[in-house]
Amino acid sequence: MGDRFFASDNSATVHPAIMEALARANTGHAIGYGEDEVTKEAAAMVRDRFGSRAKAFFVYSGTGANVIGLQSALRSHEGVICTAESHINWDECGAVEKFTGSKLLSVPGDRGRLTGPQVESFLSTRGVVHHTQPRVVSLTQATEMGTVYPVETVREISEICKRHGMYLHMDGARISNAAVSLGIDLAAMTRELGVDILSLGGTKNGLMFGEAVIVWDDELAQRLHFAQKQGMQLASKMRYIAAPFTALFGTDLWRDNAQKANALASELATKVGAIDGAEVVYPVEANGVFVSLPKEVIPLVRDEVFFYDWEPEEGIVRFMVSFDNSPEDIVALEGALRKALESNRPT
Amino acid sequence: MGDRFFASDNSATVHPAIMEALARANTGHAIGYGEDEVTKEAAAMVRDRFGSRAKAFFVYSGTGANVIGLQSALRSHEGVICTAESHINWDECGAVEKFTGSKLLSVPGDRGRLTGPQVESFLSTRGVVHHTQPRVVSLTQATEMGTVYPVETVREISEICKRHGMYLHMDGARISNAAVSLGIDLAAMTRELGVDILSLGGTKNGLMFGEAVIVWDDELAQRLHFAQKQGMQLASKMRYIAAPFTALFGTDLWRDNAQKANALASELATKVGAIDGAEVVYPVEANGVFVSLPKEVIPLVRDEVFFYDWEPEEGIVRFMVSFDNSPEDIVALEGALRKALESNRPT
Amino acid sequence: MGDRFFASDNSATVHPAIMEALARANTGHAIGYGEDEVTKEAAAMVRDRFGSRAKAFFVYSGTGANVIGLQSALRSHEGVICTAESHINWDECGAVEKFTGSKLLSVPGDRGRLTGPQVESFLSTRGVVHHTQPRVVSLTQATEMGTVYPVETVREISEICKRHGMYLHMDGARISNAAVSLGIDLAAMTRELGVDILSLGGTKNGLMFGEAVIVWDDELAQRLHFAQKQGMQLASKMRYIAAPFTALFGTDLWRDNAQKANALASELATKVGAIDGAEVVYPVEANGVFVSLPKEVIPLVRDEVFFYDWEPEEGIVRFMVSFDNSPEDIVALEGALRKALESNRPT
Amino acid sequence: MGDRFFASDNSATVHPAIMEALARANTGHAIGYGEDEVTKEAAAMVRDRFGSRAKAFFVYSGTGANVIGLQSALRSHEGVICTAESHINWDECGAVEKFTGSKLLSVPGDRGRLTGPQVESFLSTRGVVHHTQPRVVSLTQATEMGTVYPVETVREISEICKRHGMYLHMDGARISNAAVSLGIDLAAMTRELGVDILSLGGTKNGLMFGEAVIVWDDELAQRLHFAQKQGMQLASKMRYIAAPFTALFGTDLWRDNAQKANALASELATKVGAIDGAEVVYPVEANGVFVSLPKEVIPLVRDEVFFYDWEPEEGIVRFMVSFDNSPEDIVALEGALRKALESNRPT
Repeated sequence: MGDRFFASDNSATVHPAIMEALARANTGHAIGYGEDEVTKEAAAMVRDRFGSRAKAFFVYSGTGANVIGLQSALRSHEGVICTAESHINWDECGAVEKFTGSKLLSVPGDRGRLTGPQVESFLSTRGVVHHTQPRVVSLTQATEMGTVYPVETVREISEICKRHGMYLHMDGARISNAAVSLGIDLAAMTRELGVDILSLGGTKNGLMFGEAVIVWDDELAQRLHFAQKQGMQLASKMRYIAAPFTALFGTDLWRDNAQKANALASELATKVGAIDGAEVVYPVEANGVFVSLPKEVIPLVRDEVFFYDWEPEEGIVRFMVSFDNSPEDIVALEGALRKALESNRPT
Repeated sequence: MGDRFFASDNSATVHPAIMEALARANTGHAIGYGEDEVTKEAAAMVRDRFGSRAKAFFVYSGTGANVIGLQSALRSHEGVICTAESHINWDECGAVEKFTGSKLLSVPGDRGRLTGPQVESFLSTRGVVHHTQPRVVSLTQATEMGTVYPVETVREISEICKRHGMYLHMDGARISNAAVSLGIDLAAMTRELGVDILSLGGTKNGLMFGEAVIVWDDELAQRLHFAQKQGMQLASKMRYIAAPFTALFGTDLWRDNAQKANALASELATKVGAIDGAEVVYPVEANGVFVSLPKEVIPLVRDEVFFYDWEPEEGIVRFMVSFDNSPEDIVALEGALRKALESNRPT
Repeated sequence: MGDRFFASDNSATVHPAIMEALARANTGHAIGYGEDEVTKEAAAMVRDRFGSRAKAFFVYSGTGANVIGLQSALRSHEGVICTAESHINWDECGAVEKFTGSKLLSVPGDRGRLTGPQVESFLSTRGVVHHTQPRVVSLTQATEMGTVYPVETVREISEICKRHGMYLHMDGARISNAAVSLGIDLAAMTRELGVDILSLGGTKNGLMFGEAVIVWDDELAQRLHFAQKQGMQLASKMRYIAAPFTALFGTDLWRDNAQKANALASELATKVGAIDGAEVVYPVEANGVFVSLPKEVIPLVRDEVFFYDWEPEEGIVRFMVSFDNSPEDIVALEGALRKALESNRPT
Repeated sequence: MGDRFFASDNSATVHPAIMEALARANTGHAIGYGEDEVTKEAAAMVRDRFGSRAKAFFVYSGTGANVIGLQSALRSHEGVICTAESHINWDECGAVEKFTGSKLLSVPGDRGRLTGPQVESFLSTRGVVHHTQPRVVSLTQATEMGTVYPVETVREISEICKRHGMYLHMDGARISNAAVSLGIDLAAMTRELGVDILSLGGTKNGLMFGEAVIVWDDELAQRLHFAQKQGMQLASKMRYIAAPFTALFGTDLWRDNAQKANALASELATKVGAIDGAEVVYPVEANGVFVSLPKEVIPLVRDEVFFYDWEPEEGIVRFMVSFDNSPEDIVALEGALRKALESNRPT
């Protein structure tokens, strides 16, 4: 097994520029918990990038970002409309329910995407005391299935939210990949479309650890301040989360990394499309490539290059491409696929 | 204000050896969430250090370590006996209650330390359905007030726990300082005294971030595995928590750093003891020096060297010494104290 | 609008025998919280009915019974497999998630019923830390859609539970109606089929208030004892829940009431089946009759006899029959249906 | 042991007028969950009694009333200032912490009463993210120790609350006894003094079950509506809680019952004060009499008349007097005390 593979974008290394940012931050004492100069600089960078009212809360993890962001918006009798496949619903071991006490109102997405009519279908219970009250709509951008919400869909859902007094949450663990895919900047994808709470992803795009929750509303921010602490997401040595964020989003690094991963994913999709017996099953709009393979072939490929199953029953696997994958990795994976399929063919 | 001060041991830098460990870990792809070789090596190091049955869960923060450690031991009708001053009771914004649903059963400590009789005084409610059932005793070692539990006290409380089917939790955010103070090794202070759940501190002793929860019991370990994820403490890029842990505890670095901080604290205490108008108010047994000063003097000192109040009403302040403080910092603080007290003297 | 209708079996009165039991219990002082003789008598009756190891916890409400019963079986990273239509998932405003911190793993039922293969489909995530761990399967008997689980299906699911270390919970808010429908006794439907936790319904079958949680396992019982108190379900004047339970289940009253309601429901179904334009949409196996009507007709019928919509989008309404409905009520409803449909017909 | 004793006011019977109210309510079908005419009448009665903006939520239990009342006012990072002896802190098995996720900030009371300066002592942590934020002050009126807050103390604390944006909660499980003691009406003790959330007690004053949460603020009411359901306190057959409330508080029954209990308690205190070897230890201002006795005497008295210990270590016991105790019961208790003390005297 080679030393770079396609398991997840969190299998990747830390980008050298981030290592340098960490080294630069590592000088002298600094007040803890975000009251230091490095964190103030990162907060200023976020205001530059997301508007002057943007407030950033730098946290340890994506799950943490989602949970405390939602906590700031919810009372426990209120719920979150999301897809069944969303990370908050499927991949966080019930962390949202545990911490917020709220119910997730999930529905199978359209290749990872929620639609406006699906959101509206949850609204008939409003005001009825027996049912969880929809209060937040959560979109993952890019989605867990490698697709990207078009601007129009986000706007449509955002307008439903505004009309019904709901908050719009965006799980942006891979927002940089989505921005590159859409060709617009981060503010245009979020605040300008009415996003109220943003989990801004860093770990999957070259950081060592750390995500940011960004809100624009003062009341949400006031609650987040405490949710961050009570939610075990307030780093004492905060400068070491903040400095890498400045390095990632204060320069073009976020875009460069995402661009690289997306381009390689696209290349991979093209190559897979040309292989007999393999099929790309969802649109490749970011850095994930979902491929259907004969089930017996899957372990043969995995012996060469590591990756995870997506729908094991159906023989669908996921190749996540990272900024530190290389064209050679793509070639190697293509080779492994061809070889495994070949060996599987009836003679 | 100088670039090193006495606010907290989390104001310190990351030790150069830890930066090197991070750099060394930063090569090639690694499976996420702890299934990588670097984390396995760290787990082996923990077994070497704490016994072959020790299981380590590497988490982001001290609050996180305490919360998920306690979560593994508690049902929500069960509570935790602790001091009023303990970090879990006073400094975590109610994170334990929020996440576990349990009540903390607190009592003012004896200069930070719980006593055996205090623990026993909580046992009269056992079996009575109206009252929270004591299930865990939590000790902080070294305490929040700079004192250290003698081995005998830990053993006495541990025996009470065993007799009554309770778990013993140790908040070891500064356990290295306590070990140096007691002159014994880490296993002798913990497992050998009957500690069931250990929050092993790293952040305050030279790491960038990261603590470990260590348990020896299989059932606790099985629950911790999920509590870590649901509690937002499972790092995707785990190797970057694990590698520093190996560097800290797989060598003598933990002891060297703690020794340095403790020695400087002791030196500070001696110097302060010789200053007219300043008084060291708690025994200096680890790396914290608590000093009583005339209230009007406190801001004058703080203008020179940053630190926090401890009991503002009573003019008690806290000087926390870190591994990266130097003898010159001690001299500077001594100077600031003398100058401020001098300027305050009636002429 | 008449003074008896078909909104819910909780619209009914309290049965006269229950009023008498309350009056009989109302003499002299009694120790609170269940330590009284009346409650002991009820507990003995439960052992007679459900086996000598049965432990009864008398609580206020059906939601309370479900929540604390599940709380006794779950840790927060563990979840409950149930139908989307189940009361716990749809009609309790997220009470289970709020109180237990656990996730409900729901799937659309087969006319209210979960199937064995559906249960098994949730088991692939066992041991994987990212996902809620299935720990309880919850069946509603009779279901929310008026159907009844056959003995074989309960046994099949129970065996899956045993095989995989899961508990079987039965929401028996209408268990008396199901027992009558199946023609077997209460123990044969529950303990003898491997039910671990039973919410034994009383309110919908003639009580003023009160349900019982019944378990057989000592560990579940020990936890329930505290969950009842912490879950706000421990009545101080417990004898007034216990005495009615003895009156209901210590005699044949439970069966007589259920028998009466089921028979009237069956009669209603027959009558509706003969009406042109109305259609019974689910099998009528207990005391609920679900009918499809032209949407514009529904309010006309409701003006005469009150009831609730079930699937408003599809014109499906629910008629719940209570023990205190009469054949005249059925005739009146039939008349209202015929009249409304008639008036709606094109002339 | 006689059939009336002094264990608790929840050992008492249901008052005959309440039994009649239940019988009267028991006619015809009624819409569930509070949408019936009987409940509307009770709500109107509450508005008459507590002001036109008063909103009543009728719940099952006192613990339930306290928990959902506090839930409506709190986010989980906010806490409740209360006495250590308060029912919410000591006698509810951690139900508040479990359900709200909030921390109780407790302090030993002055014979059951919180003071203004005690409340203010908690305010220094406001705005500091590491500490639970005080948001509610909870007073028990009459207190758990049989004392009553004077009007001036409630006003003083209420003004502190208003000044600092905190809510004032009153646990009025025995508010009728307090009102009789103060000689003022219920509105004068609550709304007119700035109480925001009232747990209005019924069970301890002659009801079978049921308390009401009363709020005046629309936002609290809107949240309570859902907290009542999610908190398992929304009775389906609500009329049977509401009708007794109208009977109790829509007439002078509340006052008559409380007056009777208070007068008997006062008589008991006088008698005990004249007994050599027994001492009344707290002011008898409501219906509880706390008496110090030689420890060895206590079981002898209890053999004759049942009651509970209060501070077993110190030989303090509690005699709670109910509306359905009689002068003969007082005489019997006096006799038992004299006899036991006599038999204990050295000969």
